[in-house]
Amino acid sequence: MTPTELVLRVEGMSCGHCERAVTAAIKALDPAAAVAVDLAAGTVRATTALPRATVVDAVVEEGYRVVS
Amino acid sequence: MTPTELVLRVEGMSCGHCERAVTAAIKALDPAAAVAVDLAAGTVRATTALPRATVVDAVVEEGYRVVS
Repeated sequence: MTPTELVLRVEGMSCGHCERAVTAAIKALDPAAAVAVDLAAGTVRATTALPRATVVDAVVEEGYRVVS
Repeated sequence: MTPTELVLRVEGMSCGHCERAVTAAIKALDPAAAVAVDLAAGTVRATTALPRATVVDAVVEEGYRVVS
């Protein structure tokens, strides 16, 4: 599948550890994913071939709330 | 040396990852240390035989500011 850019609004990411945890969780499922976390904006941008629901689940699994 | 309770006021600890990072940094130097982090209060209580300066350095090394 062609990678697409997913943008998730995520609550609860507060620090660099959170950023790394979310990034690692997505990359564990797709090592080729490009992930950019914006803590201030509360967004996760992931360019990946993974389905959106899979990325959402990975972020939720780390303990964050995906708003949209 | 007899363990004593040190209380540090620390800025920048925001989440459970921060709590674990600070706790692990202190326990890496003294596995017998008892460490309690209060995120809301911004305090680290460590019962340890380590000198206060050593504990402060460990917390600073993790990227936090020790206020007192």
